Order: sequence, then C-alpha cells, then structure tokens
Amino acid sequence: MAEQSVPDIVIGRLPRYLQALERMRLEGITTTSSLELGQRLGISAAQIRKDLSHFGEFGKQGTGYSVEFLIEQLRAILNLNRMWDLALVGVGDLGSALARYQGFTNRGFRIVLAFDNDPQKIGKRIGHLVIEDSATIPERIRQTGVKIAMLTVPAAEAQKVTDCLVEAGIRAILNYAPIHLVVPPGIIVENIDPILKLQHMTYYLD
Amino acid sequence: MAEQSVPDIVIGRLPRYLQALERMRLEGITTTSSLELGQRLGISAAQIRKDLSHFGEFGKQGTGYSVEFLIEQLRAILNLNRMWDLALVGVGDLGSALARYQGFTNRGFRIVLAFDNDPQKIGKRIGHLVIEDSATIPERIRQTGVKIAMLTVPAAEAQKVTDCLVEAGIRAILNYAPIHLVVPPGIIVENIDPILKLQHMTYYLD
Repeated sequence: MAEQSVPDIVIGRLPRYLQALERMRLEGITTTSSLELGQRLGISAAQIRKDLSHFGEFGKQGTGYSVEFLIEQLRAILNLNRMWDLALVGVGDLGSALARYQGFTNRGFRIVLAFDNDPQKIGKRIGHLVIEDSATIPERIRQTGVKIAMLTVPAAEAQKVTDCLVEAGIRAILNYAPIHLVVPPGIIVENIDPILKLQHMTYYLD
Repeated sequence: MAEQSVPDIVIGRLPRYLQALERMRLEGITTTSSLELGQRLGISAAQIRKDLSHFGEFGKQGTGYSVEFLIEQLRAILNLNRMWDLALVGVGDLGSALARYQGFTNRGFRIVLAFDNDPQKIGKRIGHLVIEDSATIPERIRQTGVKIAMLTVPAAEAQKVTDCLVEAGIRAILNYAPIHLVVPPGIIVENIDPILKLQHMTYYLD
C-alpha cells in the first residue's frame, strides 16, 4: 500500500467524502460517481478520483462507485470501524454544548470523560457524564486509555492542560482554544476557531 | 496590487498569522521574524515569507518585521479595520454558547441578531440579545444590512434557512450544520464540523 505517503491534505478530504456518501445512503442512493460526489462537495471529479486512487481501485470506469462499499472502505481507511472514546476538558458554555451534542455517536465518537477545575461544576452531571476534577486528568486518562481529547478551556490555560494530557497518554487533541498548541512529535492537533474562519471570509467582503 | 490572484489557501493562513502576532503584542514583543512566527504556528519561515510577499514588502532583510505594523497590514488586508455584525441563526446548545462567547468583539465581530423558530425561545434573552422569530429573517436582515450569518440549525433545516439568508442579502455563512450547503456564486461558506476534524485525526491513530 502507498498509504504511508498520502498527503495530509488528501486525508483531510476523506471525512468530507464519507459524510456526503452517508447522506446519499440516507437518501436511498446506492451507486454514485466522482462527478455526482464532487457536485455535492464543490470539489472536482478529477480531484476525488485522484484522492481515492491513493488507496486502491474503488469503482469501475463507467459504472461508478457502490455507495455502501465506498463508505466501508473510507471508514476502514480512517480507522472508524470502532467507537472512539473522547475526553472533554473544560465544561463552560462550549464544552457543555459539546457534551449534550447528539451527533457524535453515529459518526464514531463518544465522550466518556468530562473535566473542569471549577469546584462548583465538579460532581455535577452534564448529559450522561459526571464532571470530574481536572486534577485527576493524569490518573483517569491512564485508567481509561482514552487517546483523544477535546480542549475547551480558556486560552491562558490551554498549553498547560495540553502538556498534562500528553503526559497522560493523549495522542490527538481537538483544540477550541484560540492559541497554537506546542506538542511533541507524533501528537496530532486540529484546531477549531470560528473567528479565523470569519476573518478568512471578510477578506472577500467589503 | 496582485491581491486579486492570491490563492484562497494563502488567505486562509493570514488570520492565523494575525492571531499569533496579536499574542506576541500581548507578550510585549515588538519585532519578530518569519522564523519566530513560523515556530509558533508550525509553518515554515519560507512559507510565511512567500504568503506575505503576495501583498508587498512588510519587513527588511535581516531586521525582521514590526509586530505592530504587520498586525495593521494584515487587519487591512482582511478588512478587519471595522466591526462586522453577525446574525446567529439557531439558538440551541451551540448557538447559545456562541451568543455568550466573549471572544468575538476584540477580534472584529459582534452578534447583533439571533433567530430561532421555537416559540418557547422567541422573545427570550440570550446574552445581550433577544431571540427573534426565524420567520422575520428576510425583513430583519434587510433592515440591518448584516452580511454574515452563523448557522447553528439542525442539518435537515440548514439548506432551507441558507436559501432564505442568501435571498435576504447575506453574503457569507459560517456553517455548523454537518452538511454541504449549496449557494449561488459569490456567496462564501466556511464549515465547522468537529467530527470531520476528529475523523481526520483517527487516520493517524490505531
């Protein structure tokens, strides 16, 4: 397999393909083409074919792709043939919204731990979780073997909490704090910052 | 100016440069280099110099960049020398968290309208806003001239609401619904979906 050398930007598009295919399946569509998939995503058919070609042959020339088969293949490539446990760190407004969000489980994720350092919050329930003391992060992450954290703490605390998470064995962090986190090699960070997206769009407005 | 032809991927990095520079300013740093900036962002110095070169000369060889000057230039390029009004559509858990978030104003944005179609919510206060009936979107968007919307409605409603927003004059949409929105040419959409980011990271986990 050539998977080792697939550019990260290609990997980043695969979840979007999967999302569109799962929607097609919901709509009862069983066969699709790179053209149809591309139109749904605003991506060229050639780009989609090129991206998928990194991983093998998924369709026959002229007959298109089986939606179900392509979903299965993409889920396997992205390691989604299992449920991934998440730790939520920081249960403010945003953390609370994430804890209550119903859309994780049917896409392969479930929050199993929630931490905050506010004594008023520790021990309280949020959705199906009980908020635990951030001081217990090292112990609880090691006990549970959770590998992915969602970080929704204030920017000023984010790096310190990150160091603690990495030390405890977390390997991937979805960072909502508006700062760039410094992590050791091999630790993956993805950032979500609505303001960066807004500032990107205002370039085109006047 | 060569601005017309700057690739969108370059534009997308400028807000990150701005964010890092604003943090440097907070830390009292007055001069920086593409190397230092790059280290903070995990981006090569060469990439930063190349990106900035699209817009002119911002530093002298060997003396680096004035942090303040570069902030001013980036803010001007991104049209951030003004406050941008936002409309929030959908005041569920996530919409509520965004309405209460304090971090918008000092980065150039303020939410001035909030809409929901739930009769239980219409008329209620959220932060400094009063939730208005989604049925009044066309009228209220036209009255206020708001150009940017944050869309936090369920996926099943997102396209219909988008059509309504675009018809009313919205030109840019930050979409939190986990679907690809179809919009006319010239309307800008950026998507925020934590699960796409999580699925990107699980590729690298095992």
